Amino acid sequence: MKIAGVLETCLYAPDLEAAKSFYQGLLGLELFAEQPGRHLFFRTGSGVFLVFNPEATRQETALPPHGAAGSVHVCFRVAAEELPGWAARLEAHGYAVTWAKWKAGQSLYVRDPAGNLVELAPAAIWGLGEG
Amino acid sequence: MKIAGVLETCLYAPDLEAAKSFYQGLLGLELFAEQPGRHLFFRTGSGVFLVFNPEATRQETALPPHGAAGSVHVCFRVAAEELPGWAARLEAHGYAVTWAKWKAGQSLYVRDPAGNLVELAPAAIWGLGEG
Repeated sequence: MKIAGVLETCLYAPDLEAAKSFYQGLLGLELFAEQPGRHLFFRTGSGVFLVFNPEATRQETALPPHGAAGSVHVCFRVAAEELPGWAARLEAHGYAVTWAKWKAGQSLYVRDPAGNLVELAPAAIWGLGEG
Repeated sequence: MKIAGVLETCLYAPDLEAAKSFYQGLLGLELFAEQPGRHLFFRTGSGVFLVFNPEATRQETALPPHGAAGSVHVCFRVAAEELPGWAARLEAHGYAVTWAKWKAGQSLYVRDPAGNLVELAPAAIWGLGEG
């Protein structure tokens, strides 16, 4: 038996409309399902990225409840040469960008509207292929 | 510019030794880096899975701080035919397993030692290939 990878990566955001503007509107993720007040589901790469309203999912009864407060970190894979373009797009929309330097390249950090810590990075910073 | 997928999926656990027993010992994830009191880094599929002690990462100064409290949800991709074996292994170690039925198969839920909600599921439940 072996775990083949991550299938669902999740974040929490009480204001799903603001999250939608950020993840769909600004980052361009493909929204494929939504339930107002509960969730936004995006497809990305070989898995899905799920944004939940923790006020809803903490009350879940049909499925096990979950929900976190604070800043969850997630990093999305982008091409190294597109990082400056991402920084420009984010800053043009009023988002502050912080750059980080690693042994094998750079990445950038930005806060989503809920305060989660979003990073954009090439897979090379982890010694991984573009997979 | 396009986001190609998720590169880093993160959870928070104040007791990293307990998290290590669960994710490395029980789920068999490949631990490739650790810093006692701060983090455990695992490779899985085309990305990495990072477990942070939020008490440490909330105080970060060199990088932007992050850290969440409560139950974060993550789902790992497994082969459908291995689900019963996973349930047996988890239950043999004292973990309660909850099954869920979806249109295109089943998945199982378990709480990690920090209370995060971990799911094991075949990609088919999202209409995705085994990729």
